[in-house]
Amino acid sequence: MTVRLGLLGAGRIGRVHAGAIAATPGAKLVAVADAVASAAETIAAETGAEVRDIAGIMGASDVDGVLITTPTDMHAAMIEEAARAGKAIFCEKPIDLDVNRVRACLQVVADTGAKLMVGFNRRFDPNFIELRRQIDEGAIGAVEMVSITSRDPAPPGPDYIKRSGGLFRDMTIHDFDMARFLLAEEPVSLFASASVLVDPAIAALGDFDSASVILTTASGKICQISNSRRATYGYDQRIEVHGAKGLVSAENLRATTVEVANADGYRREPLLNFFMTRYTAAYRNEIAHFVAAVEAGGPISPSGEDGLKALLLADAATLSAREQRVINLA
Amino acid sequence: MTVRLGLLGAGRIGRVHAGAIAATPGAKLVAVADAVASAAETIAAETGAEVRDIAGIMGASDVDGVLITTPTDMHAAMIEEAARAGKAIFCEKPIDLDVNRVRACLQVVADTGAKLMVGFNRRFDPNFIELRRQIDEGAIGAVEMVSITSRDPAPPGPDYIKRSGGLFRDMTIHDFDMARFLLAEEPVSLFASASVLVDPAIAALGDFDSASVILTTASGKICQISNSRRATYGYDQRIEVHGAKGLVSAENLRATTVEVANADGYRREPLLNFFMTRYTAAYRNEIAHFVAAVEAGGPISPSGEDGLKALLLADAATLSAREQRVINLA
Amino acid sequence: MTVRLGLLGAGRIGRVHAGAIAATPGAKLVAVADAVASAAETIAAETGAEVRDIAGIMGASDVDGVLITTPTDMHAAMIEEAARAGKAIFCEKPIDLDVNRVRACLQVVADTGAKLMVGFNRRFDPNFIELRRQIDEGAIGAVEMVSITSRDPAPPGPDYIKRSGGLFRDMTIHDFDMARFLLAEEPVSLFASASVLVDPAIAALGDFDSASVILTTASGKICQISNSRRATYGYDQRIEVHGAKGLVSAENLRATTVEVANADGYRREPLLNFFMTRYTAAYRNEIAHFVAAVEAGGPISPSGEDGLKALLLADAATLSAREQRVINLA
Amino acid sequence: MTVRLGLLGAGRIGRVHAGAIAATPGAKLVAVADAVASAAETIAAETGAEVRDIAGIMGASDVDGVLITTPTDMHAAMIEEAARAGKAIFCEKPIDLDVNRVRACLQVVADTGAKLMVGFNRRFDPNFIELRRQIDEGAIGAVEMVSITSRDPAPPGPDYIKRSGGLFRDMTIHDFDMARFLLAEEPVSLFASASVLVDPAIAALGDFDSASVILTTASGKICQISNSRRATYGYDQRIEVHGAKGLVSAENLRATTVEVANADGYRREPLLNFFMTRYTAAYRNEIAHFVAAVEAGGPISPSGEDGLKALLLADAATLSAREQRVINLA
Repeated sequence: MTVRLGLLGAGRIGRVHAGAIAATPGAKLVAVADAVASAAETIAAETGAEVRDIAGIMGASDVDGVLITTPTDMHAAMIEEAARAGKAIFCEKPIDLDVNRVRACLQVVADTGAKLMVGFNRRFDPNFIELRRQIDEGAIGAVEMVSITSRDPAPPGPDYIKRSGGLFRDMTIHDFDMARFLLAEEPVSLFASASVLVDPAIAALGDFDSASVILTTASGKICQISNSRRATYGYDQRIEVHGAKGLVSAENLRATTVEVANADGYRREPLLNFFMTRYTAAYRNEIAHFVAAVEAGGPISPSGEDGLKALLLADAATLSAREQRVINLA
Repeated sequence: MTVRLGLLGAGRIGRVHAGAIAATPGAKLVAVADAVASAAETIAAETGAEVRDIAGIMGASDVDGVLITTPTDMHAAMIEEAARAGKAIFCEKPIDLDVNRVRACLQVVADTGAKLMVGFNRRFDPNFIELRRQIDEGAIGAVEMVSITSRDPAPPGPDYIKRSGGLFRDMTIHDFDMARFLLAEEPVSLFASASVLVDPAIAALGDFDSASVILTTASGKICQISNSRRATYGYDQRIEVHGAKGLVSAENLRATTVEVANADGYRREPLLNFFMTRYTAAYRNEIAHFVAAVEAGGPISPSGEDGLKALLLADAATLSAREQRVINLA
Repeated sequence: MTVRLGLLGAGRIGRVHAGAIAATPGAKLVAVADAVASAAETIAAETGAEVRDIAGIMGASDVDGVLITTPTDMHAAMIEEAARAGKAIFCEKPIDLDVNRVRACLQVVADTGAKLMVGFNRRFDPNFIELRRQIDEGAIGAVEMVSITSRDPAPPGPDYIKRSGGLFRDMTIHDFDMARFLLAEEPVSLFASASVLVDPAIAALGDFDSASVILTTASGKICQISNSRRATYGYDQRIEVHGAKGLVSAENLRATTVEVANADGYRREPLLNFFMTRYTAAYRNEIAHFVAAVEAGGPISPSGEDGLKALLLADAATLSAREQRVINLA
Repeated sequence: MTVRLGLLGAGRIGRVHAGAIAATPGAKLVAVADAVASAAETIAAETGAEVRDIAGIMGASDVDGVLITTPTDMHAAMIEEAARAGKAIFCEKPIDLDVNRVRACLQVVADTGAKLMVGFNRRFDPNFIELRRQIDEGAIGAVEMVSITSRDPAPPGPDYIKRSGGLFRDMTIHDFDMARFLLAEEPVSLFASASVLVDPAIAALGDFDSASVILTTASGKICQISNSRRATYGYDQRIEVHGAKGLVSAENLRATTVEVANADGYRREPLLNFFMTRYTAAYRNEIAHFVAAVEAGGPISPSGEDGLKALLLADAATLSAREQRVINLA
């Protein structure tokens, strides 16, 4: 069987997913829609898909599932429309910046019985998959402490910051999802310390650019997250998990293994510094996972519930950082 | 000039310092005292020092300075006695587990004009010295975020735990000192999440064995500390400092550089797993620094004030962890 | 312009190249031929190419260039046929196992003015490209000593060994090409020490499975190569170049960056252990380079001459190892 | 029992050994002799030893063993004198630059039954000890190929070169000893390619500064050695041993583990670049081994025979490089 897909949103990330579909055996991109016609046409030309309008995808009998890669404020409505149309749904994170809107959307998903996957791409990174596999196989015993370092190469511009929902909803949300994925137990309390150290323009917008977060679970597991909007040495994406029997870590990625040594020392190149390059394999695996889940039926992960829970943590972090107090999540 | 020293306390750490004195040009261990005569005699035999009682060191005209390596509960009184006797003083951390007792002791030190150095040995580790030097030279620009990982190989027994003052006063205190050393700005708030994940006997004693701490300074610099009383892979002692222009890190130490590769992968040995082996060079440098400071006159570092400030952070962490709230340090 | 290609040989490596063509903008696989019809059909189905016979590719007006991925003993004749048909030619190494046959073939290529590229894929590995770039940019000054470690995960079976031309023509030939590429000066003498340490069946066939080679140039540059047909830890492919101002090295590749630490030490996974996985990017870059060269016109590299020179070194190594003497290459 | 030692030669390396004796329990430096009185006096002052003349050490009843650290041309005669005086002998490598002189000297040692240890310090480096231990424990199965990289930070001056016996007798001799130590089988053939790439002044003296050597044993084990008199990045001392079941390697040493990352990449400091710093632990272990062997009686290693065999390899390498041919060692 071939899983036939429609792409809603032909921007940068839409194009990444179109490429991932092309590389996935058993998947076919049937149609693409975008308010900017030329963007849709570019992807159509590259993939052989048709350009359609949204209704022409949502209502189509030759489309099994949709990928929603529009701007965030359209996500929830599109999920609901697709759910009602009986399509399987892949939606980029977040479902919405507003928790109540997310809850309402998930109610529609539940009522329609739709299959919804949220795009937490990092769960599909080969390094983090292997890290999790080592944990599952008992290599480090019971998980005790998770440490996530997550720093962007450079801060986005003010327009992006304004629409982003703030550092925690935009950036840390990935780390919150990863924390939940690795702790395998929900946090019951959260503390976030956040500052503006990178760019005063971010302070002017009421946001933060540097943060450290501690999550604690009921059984006492602890996760710490370190974020910055800027890392001169590249896109810094590391995880360590400390357990009763050992430690497992996943290091950063570089384009090559070359090292140059001279009187100044030994020098390796900076890290891959673009999220699409760093997570190329993750994006492919993610779409392959979605396609396989659509084909197989049954539950899908990360689910809408996962999206909601990460957003709740992001909201709690925002509150914690602003009021400088511990948030009880229970 | 030779700096003539007396050693008060001939236990394990006293012996380390005796060895460090022997390796320091311009220093001489004149006398050693201990309630256990055989311990003092062993060090005397190894170094050529005389065995004396405490008064015979404190009151001696052939002793310029003393090293206090007795049990913690004797530190403050000995510091006061030595200060009044006009000796330069090196004292193992902590000065006392009680902040008020420390304050009273430091008042005596101030009144007598005595020179007091507190044994935060990690400031003298060649790796951390180099890390700090890189910061001072501007290699990473302004310091923004400090991350300290500090895990012991194995938890101490219940007797030690009972007398230790708890995880934060006994173990994290070193990390608090290092945080202050690297942030170069005093923290104004602190949050600590602490658990018992390693050994239930530690819970029975009202203490913790696993913790994560966030310190925040007035300008928004953030330090996170990760502690555990147990690390199966050795004595885990790492520091990373993230700044405006880059990142500087100091990695762990191993006995050798050997790696074995086969079908199971590439394997390096565990870390050095004993604090005396891991910090051998630090202990030597520390004593050399004390000797040089005694000889040169002038201020000495880390000072009694440094000892007090680290203890205040430890007390705040204990309170924070117990009451699960943020502590305002201002 | 689109470069239209025909694939001659639909085996394992042919399929790799078909995939590389599909991933290369501006290239199109028009037709594929193979004595085994099903093999050609599989690639045709995957790529949209037509299945044709060899003549239907060689004589076709809709084919600009051919890729020759047949068994080695057909290479030279096919190159000649394609050269006479005016096609641009990519041929897997070696052109032939016999130097005289190679020379005759290259004469036809020269006479027809055909463009011929030989498939030394390692020149297109991103790591080795970067290593060479560092040299070209002067990072290590004048090249003095090249060290190549090249070990296969496991020895091939006896049928392969019989047809292979022996260790030096089959395996070391890649290292000889890399040595020439990095020394940028032809070797004038060669010594090879070779043994059978891995599999006595290889000795029975008159071949070797372990070898060390030294190449020396007229100006005194030295290259050493270490080969084995078996490496339990994966496909070991490393290069170091020592120069007047420094050292540049390219390390091995792994599937992930995960490391597990426990009481047994720190363990990373074995190396990528299949040449197609290890050199995936190299195969893509190689085909992209061929396509670009066909489109641009002008000289192409590595050339037929490069293929001949590497083979001459392999022959010299075979002689050196058998007679245990230094071979003067001048 | 205390092993009482006399030091013959108070130069740089003599002082290192004097320090090693002071650090070895059960050893005592009784006396030191040197043609330069002030040199002997310095060591005497540092250690409490007496300054004597050579006869006053050789003939002394309070001296159990001697360390010969004089210039090379005095080694053999001193070994003979000490052997006849019944002293245990530690002598720096080489015994002599002339093989026949070495043989005559070893005959005296054999006739007198003296205990002679030759100073191949690298066998006592903790990294190489561990590497050898892994081999002995079977971690890599049967040894097949040894690769030694050995490069000095900077070439010595012409006076040193003139007296050195040439690159192979002065520098590679350590690698020849290490090769024998790790192969555990004598080489039967040798080829050396050598050049002058670093300093033309070395060519003017008839010597080489860059070399690559291949040793082959009767069973087909292969060792390759890469030498240079100059490495801008420090003192490059690495070993890899490839076996039937895996690979074991020992990497270089640095003063600290600090790494700095910024937009230019990740940078670690250069290597330790002085042989005394690099091999500090080896020198200590070496003397401890000598002292233990003197106390225990029985055979000692590395022996005079080991010294002779390494010198024979150095002579063969010199001949091979000059005549550009393979040397049959059998």
